Amino acid sequence: MMQLLTSFLEIDPHSDFTIHNLPYGIFSEVPNGHKRIGVAIGEWVLDLALLESEGLLNIDGNINCFNQPTLNKFIESGKHNWKNVRKMLQSLLSIDNPILRDNHDLISQALLKRDSITLHLPIHIPGYTDFYSSKEHATNVGTMFRDPKNALLPNWSELPVGYNGRASSVVVSGTNIVRPSGQIKLPNVDRPIFSATRKLDFELETAFVVGKSTELGQPISIDNAWDHIFGMVLLNDWSARDIQQWEYVPLGPFNAKTFASAISPWVVTMEALEPFKVKGPEQDPKPLDYLQENIANSYDIHLSVEVQSPQSQSTDVICQTNFKYMYWSMAQQLTHHTIAGCNVQVGDLMGSGTISGSKIDSYGSLLELTWNTTKPITLSNGENRGFLEDGDRVIMKGYCEKDGIRIGFGQVENTILAAHTFNFDKKEVEQYETV
Amino acid sequence: MMQLLTSFLEIDPHSDFTIHNLPYGIFSEVPNGHKRIGVAIGEWVLDLALLESEGLLNIDGNINCFNQPTLNKFIESGKHNWKNVRKMLQSLLSIDNPILRDNHDLISQALLKRDSITLHLPIHIPGYTDFYSSKEHATNVGTMFRDPKNALLPNWSELPVGYNGRASSVVVSGTNIVRPSGQIKLPNVDRPIFSATRKLDFELETAFVVGKSTELGQPISIDNAWDHIFGMVLLNDWSARDIQQWEYVPLGPFNAKTFASAISPWVVTMEALEPFKVKGPEQDPKPLDYLQENIANSYDIHLSVEVQSPQSQSTDVICQTNFKYMYWSMAQQLTHHTIAGCNVQVGDLMGSGTISGSKIDSYGSLLELTWNTTKPITLSNGENRGFLEDGDRVIMKGYCEKDGIRIGFGQVENTILAAHTFNFDKKEVEQYETV
Repeated sequence: MMQLLTSFLEIDPHSDFTIHNLPYGIFSEVPNGHKRIGVAIGEWVLDLALLESEGLLNIDGNINCFNQPTLNKFIESGKHNWKNVRKMLQSLLSIDNPILRDNHDLISQALLKRDSITLHLPIHIPGYTDFYSSKEHATNVGTMFRDPKNALLPNWSELPVGYNGRASSVVVSGTNIVRPSGQIKLPNVDRPIFSATRKLDFELETAFVVGKSTELGQPISIDNAWDHIFGMVLLNDWSARDIQQWEYVPLGPFNAKTFASAISPWVVTMEALEPFKVKGPEQDPKPLDYLQENIANSYDIHLSVEVQSPQSQSTDVICQTNFKYMYWSMAQQLTHHTIAGCNVQVGDLMGSGTISGSKIDSYGSLLELTWNTTKPITLSNGENRGFLEDGDRVIMKGYCEKDGIRIGFGQVENTILAAHTFNFDKKEVEQYETV
Repeated sequence: MMQLLTSFLEIDPHSDFTIHNLPYGIFSEVPNGHKRIGVAIGEWVLDLALLESEGLLNIDGNINCFNQPTLNKFIESGKHNWKNVRKMLQSLLSIDNPILRDNHDLISQALLKRDSITLHLPIHIPGYTDFYSSKEHATNVGTMFRDPKNALLPNWSELPVGYNGRASSVVVSGTNIVRPSGQIKLPNVDRPIFSATRKLDFELETAFVVGKSTELGQPISIDNAWDHIFGMVLLNDWSARDIQQWEYVPLGPFNAKTFASAISPWVVTMEALEPFKVKGPEQDPKPLDYLQENIANSYDIHLSVEVQSPQSQSTDVICQTNFKYMYWSMAQQLTHHTIAGCNVQVGDLMGSGTISGSKIDSYGSLLELTWNTTKPITLSNGENRGFLEDGDRVIMKGYCEKDGIRIGFGQVENTILAAHTFNFDKKEVEQYETV
């Protein structure tokens, strides 16, 4: 049983942001205001820059770790500081500790209602890598796009397949997504056409944030890998399936993915996730030595996707799955990433790949849920969806629950805007209309 | 005819670094010393930080543009500043201008012998993309790895195929390359083995540096694309062919490339390259509208690769080719990169892809030159090479010459170190031995 902590703040036990969580984010009071680090707690954000300036948070050997526009400096300060700050915050928020509890002036300044502030991209992301570690997802995609008899390629069960993503277009939840345009190849036509994507899709993923840099040529051993991971976020790896299918052989997805990847604003730490560790699936064949791990290396994280049509007042849950289905662990992903000598940097984002379960309603993309439009989804207002339409809102959520204790990720949500119109005679891109 | 400029400095007309060139780099006087911007001229580096502090270089609206550890701030200052600084430098170095010529104190401080200083990675690279734009290279690889009858995939002639590379492992010329290890799949064996690569290869490329950032969702039209390009470098896109062949389907190359990509230290500006513009190859089929360009959009850049065995005192030229063979232009690459909405950032590096010509001695990789080891190369000292061996040094060079005027890129050179030894019982990576 976990020890139940209690805060002097009134926090709904069903909140994602209990005292057991304490995820870090970057906020400002107005959209273009002063950015600094905060922690989500109940309905509030706790301003860590203010607590630091008041001398209530101390980081070994560093000053001004929290009055920062990204989490990177805090993350770079090292794992023992992550642990210490978590302890200090749990103590400061505890019902038994008068320091903050009884300082009403400070509380009124340091606690801001979450619905009144703006959240920003929490990290500077030097590199973004996306893996492909759900066996169910890889099998589904292989069945549809390649060969049902050999859906899973031979390398898939030997290594955590991954590819370099585009870091510049990682955006925070709330950013609108312009429907991308590009080359698509229609069947029975010789040449591709230029068009807005007709197959705009989400991919339900999580991602971890690298917490410790390495030097070029210095692989991370599997036993050390967990020490290099700071925390996790939800990731919607936006995808344009028709652009992808035409472009991706032989060098992998490019424009089909680089137009946007969205993450949730709160980074949930590995310490907060620790009580929710579980064993991952049996790995058969047993991985090569450098990838072998004999510990509980997965997490029991409930994940869901909701879609809201612009014609609807409510959302429909269209996918429910769990992180624990992932075949390859985050440590295996990170070790494999560095085994040939590639260096990693604090803030690097590493996506899990689409997280699909074995049941039809646990598939993590519309491509799988609608089997490439052959089995459209019917929303509660009667509309059908093969892929996403303009104005659709996609919301991903994630949480852990055990022994009456809950921590959650909040959400990553985006709304789709209509594609640009292109006028190639004038050679310019006209302003897109917002929906 | 170009106007021949003359400097008060004595510069060999066969130097890469004539007054017509003036490429930018980052140097320090000692390896870990103070980094700042310099320009290569003849045998020297001209210290721009010092000229700036003396009031001899003025950037509109900026101060301290050259006393910087990367070129990014100068590049961000905008195209009109690139032009103005180039003019100021050509004037300061001119035989007719007494300001620098007659200030012997300043000259003795501002001009440093190039062989006495350390050169660093010239740019902070937020994103690295590699294209695949040589028809000859794509055809050769397709013939060897896929199907000789359908060597070129259908998408290749419709769009500049590219993929996201790994920015963290882009290194400057002179960095030693540790032979990478990873999974390789031998024929007639069920499972992959863990091994140092047996097929370590170079790829002769150039790369351009993005000079102007864009916003997410805002494509760059083909007519504006050239304004977003600051300059070019040589690029050796190091590759491990056996790791690549096992891992690259379906998401593209990953560990086979991410262990290192090396660039030359001097960024040659597009202004310096302007007189060497030529038409690229005829494009058939005519590209879709968004990629159509009707101007001279290529450059006549002579490129070569030399290899030196550790058993040899001299280098062998094993490849001579030319940038003008590239099928897709840099503007087409950049426009395609952004057409779906991906944003680019100042300092982004965009590789050309291996630059192969049509003749056997113009192939830009050992994979092609030795036809995957079936036709080994014999070096002048009698040794054979299929792929590279430990201790081998690879040097790439590039230059333009016309009307008696020469500008060059200098070189990118690296030496190969033996692979790490891995001890999986101890679960640690032992120190590698230097060769």
